Amino acid sequence: MALIEARTLKGFRDYLPETMMPRERLMETARRVYRSYGFAPIDTPALEYEEILTGKGGEESDKQLYRFEDHGGRKVALRFDLTVPLARFVAQYHNELGLPFKRYHIGPVWRGENTQRGRYREFVQCDFDTIGVETITADIESVLVVHDLFRALGFEKFQIRVNNRKLLNGLLESLDLAERSAAILRVLDKLPKAGEAKVREELTGALALDSARADEVIRIASIQGSNAAILAELKPLARGEKGEQGLAELSELLRCVEAAGVPAERVQLDPSIARGLDYYTGTILETFLGDLPAIGSVCSGGRYDNLTQLYTKERMPGIGASLGLDRLLAAMEELGMLEKRRTPVGVMLAFFDAQHLSDYLRLAARLREAGIGVEFYPEPKKLGAQLKYADRRGFRHALILGSDEWKNGRCQLKDLASGTSRELALEDGRGALSPELLAALSA
Amino acid sequence: MALIEARTLKGFRDYLPETMMPRERLMETARRVYRSYGFAPIDTPALEYEEILTGKGGEESDKQLYRFEDHGGRKVALRFDLTVPLARFVAQYHNELGLPFKRYHIGPVWRGENTQRGRYREFVQCDFDTIGVETITADIESVLVVHDLFRALGFEKFQIRVNNRKLLNGLLESLDLAERSAAILRVLDKLPKAGEAKVREELTGALALDSARADEVIRIASIQGSNAAILAELKPLARGEKGEQGLAELSELLRCVEAAGVPAERVQLDPSIARGLDYYTGTILETFLGDLPAIGSVCSGGRYDNLTQLYTKERMPGIGASLGLDRLLAAMEELGMLEKRRTPVGVMLAFFDAQHLSDYLRLAARLREAGIGVEFYPEPKKLGAQLKYADRRGFRHALILGSDEWKNGRCQLKDLASGTSRELALEDGRGALSPELLAALSA
Repeated sequence: MALIEARTLKGFRDYLPETMMPRERLMETARRVYRSYGFAPIDTPALEYEEILTGKGGEESDKQLYRFEDHGGRKVALRFDLTVPLARFVAQYHNELGLPFKRYHIGPVWRGENTQRGRYREFVQCDFDTIGVETITADIESVLVVHDLFRALGFEKFQIRVNNRKLLNGLLESLDLAERSAAILRVLDKLPKAGEAKVREELTGALALDSARADEVIRIASIQGSNAAILAELKPLARGEKGEQGLAELSELLRCVEAAGVPAERVQLDPSIARGLDYYTGTILETFLGDLPAIGSVCSGGRYDNLTQLYTKERMPGIGASLGLDRLLAAMEELGMLEKRRTPVGVMLAFFDAQHLSDYLRLAARLREAGIGVEFYPEPKKLGAQLKYADRRGFRHALILGSDEWKNGRCQLKDLASGTSRELALEDGRGALSPELLAALSA
Repeated sequence: MALIEARTLKGFRDYLPETMMPRERLMETARRVYRSYGFAPIDTPALEYEEILTGKGGEESDKQLYRFEDHGGRKVALRFDLTVPLARFVAQYHNELGLPFKRYHIGPVWRGENTQRGRYREFVQCDFDTIGVETITADIESVLVVHDLFRALGFEKFQIRVNNRKLLNGLLESLDLAERSAAILRVLDKLPKAGEAKVREELTGALALDSARADEVIRIASIQGSNAAILAELKPLARGEKGEQGLAELSELLRCVEAAGVPAERVQLDPSIARGLDYYTGTILETFLGDLPAIGSVCSGGRYDNLTQLYTKERMPGIGASLGLDRLLAAMEELGMLEKRRTPVGVMLAFFDAQHLSDYLRLAARLREAGIGVEFYPEPKKLGAQLKYADRRGFRHALILGSDEWKNGRCQLKDLASGTSRELALEDGRGALSPELLAALSA
C-alpha cells in the first residue's frame, strides 16, 4: 500500500509542545484578566450560514471566506472573525442575556489569505466586548483590560494608542470633508506602514482632495507630544458638536485611566490611529510593543454603535478589543520571552527496577496528590537513556530509586541543569512524604 | 434593508455564559490532570487534506465528513476526531518529538451526523495519548489518568470498565472464529444498547455463526462478578498465546491500578467491552457514570499498535483515551452538578455617584490587584436597577459607595442571597484595603 504523505495544508500550521505550552499560558492569562472584570465566556460554532458572514468585513473578507455546501445543501462558511458571530449571537439572545452584556470569546478563525509574511489561514482570536453601554465607562474599562492583560503577560514596555472616530470625523467636517470621511480614514490607517508620500498620493489621487487639505489631514494625523499638548493643539481644530464630543470623550478617558492607576506613558493619544474598518463610531485603540513596534498592533478595537443592525432593529452599542494571540506569540518568541521546555512538569521519575512497578506508580500518585506533577518513565530502560530523555524534554529534576533506595526509604534527586545529585528521605517519621523531598521538587 | 435572521446552523449550538463557564472549568480540569502526568499540549489545524482523513474511521465517518475545495483548488476536509490528526502529526514530526511522546489535545471536531438524540455536528474532544511505548505501564497510566480526571471533575460514583483485544481475539480463536473477529467485535460492541437477541441475530445472520458458538460468544461477554472471579472464569477459555497474553496484561493492569491507590470498585473488568473501531490491539476502556449509566461511555480509548502505518513505515504503538466533553457536560447538567451563575466574579461594584467615576475605577483596580475579581456597573443608574442586574447575573455581593461613604472611607456590602447589608471600612490605618473588606469579598 502506498503511503500518504503526512503534511499540513498550505497556510496552516501545527503547534508542537514547546510552542503550544506558552500559547496555552497566553490564553489562560487572557481568560484570567477578562474574568477579573466580569467578562463571561461564550462559544459559537465555527460554521455559520453564509449569509450571516458575507458582506460584513468588506470585499476582502468575502473573497477570503471558506465557503461550501453542507450535507443538507445549506450554504455555509467558516467564521473569519469573532465579531460578526457576536453580533449574530447578541441579536439572537439579547432578551435572555440582558444588558449590559460582557463577554469574552477565544477561538480559531479562518481566512483564505495570501500566506506571505508569516500570515496563517487559521489563527486564534481572544476578544472581549461590552454590549449595551453608551457611557464612556466601558471605553475606559476596555483600555484598563488591555493594560492589565499586557502586564499579566509579562510586558513592561508597551503602549496603548487611543483616538476617537467622532474627533476624526469632526476634524474632517471642519475641513469640509465629512462626506468622504470613511474613505479618508481607510487611507489614513495606512500612514504608519505606507508613509506620508503614499498617503498624500492616495488622498489627492483617488479621493480628489486638493493638496492644501491633503497636507492638513496629514499634518493633523502627525501631531505628536504629551497627551495634554495634543489635546490642546486639537481643541481649536475640532469645531462643531461631533469634534468637541470626541475630544471630551478622549480627555475623560485619559483622565480616568490615569486615575485608575495606569502609568501615563502607557496610554498615548495618537491622532494617526484611524482603524481600517468602517463600523467604528467612537473610541479606537491599538497596542504596540515597545521592543518590537514593527510588527504592528497586537491588540486593537474600539466602539461601534450599530453592529447588530443587520440582524435586529434594536440598537445595541458595543465596545471591545481583540488580542491577536498568534501574532503576539510570534513576537514573544522573537523577543526571547518564551521558555524552551517541552514538558509541563518539573520531575521525571525514573523506572529503574521492574520489580517495583507498582511502588513507582504509588509514589507518583502520592506526589500528584501533593500537587507535584510528575512523569513516570514507562520502561525500565538503562538509566542513561532515561536521563537523556529527561534532559531533552527539559525536566528540572530526575527522581531515582533502585532496589536499595526502596529498601531504605531513600531516593536520589538529580538536578538536571547542574548535574548534581543528593539523597533524601522519602517519608517523614509518620508515613507522609518528607518535607525535604516536597520542598526540593517544588523548587 | 431586510434583516438577516440571526440563527445557528442545524446541528450546531451556541454556548451562553451559564453553560460556557462550566465547560471552561471542565477543560481546565482536564488540562491540569493531563499535565500532572507529563502530557504536553499540541494543536493541529481544523482543516486537513482530504486524503489524510478519508478511509480512517470507516464508511460512516467518510460519509459524515465536511469536505470542499479551498481557494487553491485543494481537496480539504474538517477533522472528525483528534486521533487521525495525531497519527499524521506523529508521522510528520517523530524525529523532532522523540519517543515516548505524551500529548493531550483539546479541540472541536465536526461530523455531519443525523442530529437526533441531542447529538451535535460540532463537539469538543479532550484526548490524551502516549506514543512509542510497548509496555503495560502506559496502559496502567491511562486508567489512572481517567480515574484522576473524573475525581477532579467532582465524581464519586463512576466506573472504568476495561477489557483487552488480545484476550477477545484469543477467546474467538479458541472458538475457531479468528478470521471473523473484527466483524464479531463490532457486533459485540452493540450488546449493551441493542441487547442479546439483536446481537445473536446479527451473529447468526450476517456473520453466519452457528447458534452454539453465537451463544458462547454472548455468554462470555456476559460474564459478571469481581475482577478476580472473571479472570478465573476466563482463564481456561483463553487458550493459546494471544489469549494468555491478553489475560496476563489485564491481570497486571488491575493489580497495579489498585496498588497505585484506585479503589477496586472503580475499575471493573468487563468482557462485553469491545469498542467498535478496528484499530485497537490491546487494552480497551470505557467509563460510565454511576448515576447516569444510560448515556453510555463518557471517556473511551485503548491501545493501538499501527495507527501511523498509513503515513510512515516506522511502527509506533500508542494508547490513549478521549473525554467526550460536551456529552459529559450534558450529563452533569442533568445531574444538577453545574452551578447556575452567569458571571465569573463574585462582586459587583455599584456606580452610585457619577462625580466619583475615577474613584470607583481605582477601587476596582485595587481589588483586582488583591486578587478579587469585580465587575463595575458601567452607568450611574438607579441602585434598584443595578441590584436587579446583580441578582439576575448571580453575583454574591454588591459593593455600594455613595458620596457619604467616599467622604467617610466606608462602604456598604450587600449579601445578595440573604439581602443583608453591613458597613465596612474601606482601608486599614495605613492606606491599604481593609482586611475585613478583603475577607468579606473573598468569602
